[in-house]
Amino acid sequence: MPKKDSNIPVIGITMGDPAGIGPEVIVKALSQPELRQRARYIIYGMNELLTYAADMAEIDVFWWRDQHERIKRDFLRGVVVADYDEINWLSGNHQRVATDIGGQASMQFACDAIEDARSGKIDAVVTAPINKHSWHLAGFKKYPGHTELFTDKCKQKRSAMMFVGGPFRVVLATIHEPLFELRHQFKIGTVFEPIDLVNDALKKWFGIEKPKIAVAGLNPHAGESGQFGDEEERIISPAILMAQEAGIDVVGPFPPDTIFHQALDGRYDAIVAQYHDQGLIPVKLLAFDRAVNVTIGLPIIRTSVDHGTAFDIAGKNKANPQSMISAIELACDMADIKRQANMSNTPKKVTRKN
Amino acid sequence: MPKKDSNIPVIGITMGDPAGIGPEVIVKALSQPELRQRARYIIYGMNELLTYAADMAEIDVFWWRDQHERIKRDFLRGVVVADYDEINWLSGNHQRVATDIGGQASMQFACDAIEDARSGKIDAVVTAPINKHSWHLAGFKKYPGHTELFTDKCKQKRSAMMFVGGPFRVVLATIHEPLFELRHQFKIGTVFEPIDLVNDALKKWFGIEKPKIAVAGLNPHAGESGQFGDEEERIISPAILMAQEAGIDVVGPFPPDTIFHQALDGRYDAIVAQYHDQGLIPVKLLAFDRAVNVTIGLPIIRTSVDHGTAFDIAGKNKANPQSMISAIELACDMADIKRQANMSNTPKKVTRKN
Repeated sequence: MPKKDSNIPVIGITMGDPAGIGPEVIVKALSQPELRQRARYIIYGMNELLTYAADMAEIDVFWWRDQHERIKRDFLRGVVVADYDEINWLSGNHQRVATDIGGQASMQFACDAIEDARSGKIDAVVTAPINKHSWHLAGFKKYPGHTELFTDKCKQKRSAMMFVGGPFRVVLATIHEPLFELRHQFKIGTVFEPIDLVNDALKKWFGIEKPKIAVAGLNPHAGESGQFGDEEERIISPAILMAQEAGIDVVGPFPPDTIFHQALDGRYDAIVAQYHDQGLIPVKLLAFDRAVNVTIGLPIIRTSVDHGTAFDIAGKNKANPQSMISAIELACDMADIKRQANMSNTPKKVTRKN
Repeated sequence: MPKKDSNIPVIGITMGDPAGIGPEVIVKALSQPELRQRARYIIYGMNELLTYAADMAEIDVFWWRDQHERIKRDFLRGVVVADYDEINWLSGNHQRVATDIGGQASMQFACDAIEDARSGKIDAVVTAPINKHSWHLAGFKKYPGHTELFTDKCKQKRSAMMFVGGPFRVVLATIHEPLFELRHQFKIGTVFEPIDLVNDALKKWFGIEKPKIAVAGLNPHAGESGQFGDEEERIISPAILMAQEAGIDVVGPFPPDTIFHQALDGRYDAIVAQYHDQGLIPVKLLAFDRAVNVTIGLPIIRTSVDHGTAFDIAGKNKANPQSMISAIELACDMADIKRQANMSNTPKKVTRKN
């Protein structure tokens, strides 16, 4: 257990799929002294692969390791690798593809980190990318991705994906669904839940006392009074009203093509987008390589890179660690807020960076 | 008829709905001497309202007027108002709302300008905003907007909306439809046509010999090999293949949330977006107030502001003329290219501005 009176949090980082760029972006990110000042870190992964990535990047090893079951978590500073050296993996000498071993390994890293976060051994989890196909090969077909795994293992029924990047915090009401299939699941709760979840998350993890939330419409011009679709009137407006009646400071629905420009000045603490690309087009346009995926609605802090395993460039020292750096920084910010909130009633506010 | 050997084009500008901000943005835009150097202008509108807007903005009248039927169009320089003074309208003293008179007037301005462009009396038409409800009150229910009117009056079956703004030229495959209704009309031709039309338009009006076109997917991650929707495989890829077989340099479908970031460096001359907000979110985020709407697929040049009548601020000297300025500049550029192409085989290329 980390000492409770310590001033800096303990951040767990999962290595993701061993064949992906996870080891490389973790090593590159934590090689920055500023990040190592901010927190203590446990990397759930394989020392052999992290060392290989450091060699490729000409980074001196800055961590110590121990067998994962023996990590006591009472170290005070620095980085420790919770090493899963029992995994049979040939570093630098295997194909960069989806494998059942990769699926097994990345699932174990994530599950162990979730357990440690739930028991309070670590203050936040930052995840490197897993590969869905590896999970399938390993027999884990229940979870489309980390988000659903974290939600289930934390015994939550509701969660949502929030992307933090550039001037925006954007929450998605729907995620990885065919666009034209969304109509089957687009109900008042679909829109109400992300409003409710982000309102809670902004208060609890971002130190914003009275969050101001904007909601995008679904249709062109937000339907223009029903001329181009009635979902605004039938579904989105009632969801907003319901949230307002619950005391949430939320406005909308706004025309999707203007709300993001309006939000550039920071007037809203978050925007609820109705579908994947509505939210991610503006985030990635302004914060490509720097956006962070945050799961809201969990009892623990979880941030993630917003990219995949990138097998095509893995092992070649070509990966950009910026999203991992941003994900670690945000996890540190959120953990600081949480720790301060536990000590006082005036949490510091997380500021956004451009 | 303008003299054919004159070096500068004749641009027709329609005033749009008299109750809207059309008169104001036209007067403010053309008050810039640089714009008046670039072309000669005929404003299809009402002198009384243009004078009122100039008074409000403290702009000295820089034009001359004549009754619209008497405009000979053989003037050499400057701005003339083709005045529809038979229209019974009280300037500065009426409500800023949709009216049948407004609908009649704005329809007449547009139809006369189209006729003059088709007969070669003017080289391009720039439109100020009309109000759909005014058109309905005046009995014109056939046309949802200018685009459809221009397409019909030019005897075309196909046309498409292109938005030019910041680093982007974006063509929309579908426009003002409820998002979930698009599935009924989303066919191979829906995607092929805008590719074909923009390829022609870029060659003909933008001086690009071999346009390079990118096509966005419809679904998250462009369907990720069919996991999140099959429209990419069933519809978009076949449309791209068909266009490639017709000799067009077109690639895609790309994930909608990354293609716009990738296109920031200008590697594509245009992007085909599958629906309204997919294309307009990035354009308006980077070029709010400066984007121009161009109708492609017509035998004449037509550009437009990308905003509406804005009745709420009309007559108050609050309107921003930037979109009108951009629309006039683009019309001048396109008219120059067309005139040069008529004279030689090496048209100048239209450059994009950030």
